[in-house]
Amino acid sequence: MFDLQSYLKERAQLIERALKRSVEEPTGAAARLHEAMRYSLLAGGKRLRPVLALASCEAVGGKVEAAMGLACAVEMIHTYSLIHDDLPCMDDDDMRRGRPTNHKVYGEAIATLAGDALLTDAFKVLALSADRSTSPALVLETVAELATAAGASGMVAGQVIDLIGEGKSKTVEELEELHGKKTGALFLASVRGGARLGGASASQIESLDAYARALGLAFQVVDDLLDVQGTPEQMGKRTQKDFERGKATYPAILGVERSMDLARELETRAHRALQGFGDRADALRQIATFVVERKL
Amino acid sequence: MFDLQSYLKERAQLIERALKRSVEEPTGAAARLHEAMRYSLLAGGKRLRPVLALASCEAVGGKVEAAMGLACAVEMIHTYSLIHDDLPCMDDDDMRRGRPTNHKVYGEAIATLAGDALLTDAFKVLALSADRSTSPALVLETVAELATAAGASGMVAGQVIDLIGEGKSKTVEELEELHGKKTGALFLASVRGGARLGGASASQIESLDAYARALGLAFQVVDDLLDVQGTPEQMGKRTQKDFERGKATYPAILGVERSMDLARELETRAHRALQGFGDRADALRQIATFVVERKL
Repeated sequence: MFDLQSYLKERAQLIERALKRSVEEPTGAAARLHEAMRYSLLAGGKRLRPVLALASCEAVGGKVEAAMGLACAVEMIHTYSLIHDDLPCMDDDDMRRGRPTNHKVYGEAIATLAGDALLTDAFKVLALSADRSTSPALVLETVAELATAAGASGMVAGQVIDLIGEGKSKTVEELEELHGKKTGALFLASVRGGARLGGASASQIESLDAYARALGLAFQVVDDLLDVQGTPEQMGKRTQKDFERGKATYPAILGVERSMDLARELETRAHRALQGFGDRADALRQIATFVVERKL
Repeated sequence: MFDLQSYLKERAQLIERALKRSVEEPTGAAARLHEAMRYSLLAGGKRLRPVLALASCEAVGGKVEAAMGLACAVEMIHTYSLIHDDLPCMDDDDMRRGRPTNHKVYGEAIATLAGDALLTDAFKVLALSADRSTSPALVLETVAELATAAGASGMVAGQVIDLIGEGKSKTVEELEELHGKKTGALFLASVRGGARLGGASASQIESLDAYARALGLAFQVVDDLLDVQGTPEQMGKRTQKDFERGKATYPAILGVERSMDLARELETRAHRALQGFGDRADALRQIATFVVERKL
């Protein structure tokens, strides 16, 4: 019987070790930069995106090592986006994962640069991950897909739409577009890239694409629900901030009950996309359940 | 007889066209992001780094097309670094290339995100540039080298050392380390990457590496001289700011005369590295002269 908790624990340990190797030791004249990078990158967190990259690789019969560079890269990109989102000129947040945000500790200049460096080095780590068993062509395709997911037509666009749209009402479709870019694109790149590096066929990537889209959206719906219902102690960060700022959220548009229904429907959709993958996709299946059940 | 001015003009036109294709048209919900990216990326400038990528590719007999993705990528990375350097939490500059800086026009949040997106999309543009005549392995190696040059052990480290060291006196060696990271690394990646994509041998890359190191340093020495001697009207940006902030510069440490001597010595070193390349390296030769003579 597959046990998600042991799986997550084991994979998270592999990821922690690889992440530590991905950022420099704080030495030399720029030690403070490396310290700031490590402060945010090695602060724990769910490691959901890198786990998805590994689990997706394993779901198509690949070895975890093949996707480890990608796993580190997506977590580095996720971490950079949190550091920049927390800056005073953006969301102006003081707490993250139960600790002061990066700029509260290192100042705005170093925090901005630590984000820049994590983003840049993510592509270094991924590009250097090609080895004898993984072709440069597959890694290069993954670099292009990851940069597309994270850049001006993906995650950064999502952040801009979110910033500009604060206080404006939104339809469910507009909210879906926003989150598809802001969080969905990186989920998608993690899953698709992990599968590609694990040797997936085109049709396997197509199925996992559907899985990742449903999962990414479910994650966001549940995140919105947690923002309404969680306490700062449970969450390690300020809650109800979306509500206070008049940001459009699923509970605000659909109400709490219908948002929960939507999350469950997306969980079903994610499971359906994994039909035909057999036992090897058990991790992906249970992650979808975990993402939805963590609150409901 | 090789004419540098026509060469620079023709190459700059090719680069402008390619850069325009590298950033999205401002449409849709994130139009303001794309507008901000274009504002800084398409604001002119010398295009020195992308020209070096193309000229280096041509110096080893490659076609300009092979290095065009890299050329766009290095200019996008250079532009992102200028946008972030100009932010209030960094150098707090109002003018750049004779126009208001990005955050003065679009605000700090959009400026930060426009920089993030230019940096990210640089890797997309480079990764997508592999074609039938350029192997994915060479492009992937260039991605890794560019990310290393721009990231936590390269350009960003240089910026941090510069920020932290403001007002502190420096030796010539410390200044060389600072500029080697802050500006030299991206020059080096442009030249080495252009050569690699043009089909260079290992020994050709080694020679061009020496050329790029000498050129990058010469560029910085002359930049320091211009900061002391130029007027804001000539430069399109505030001058004497390094001096006012007590930043270590070559004229401050060596004096104006010895700094000029150093620039000329570096020009000679750059020319010497190109021995054995024949006429095809005329552009690189004359660029070294141009970089030094633009002021002296």
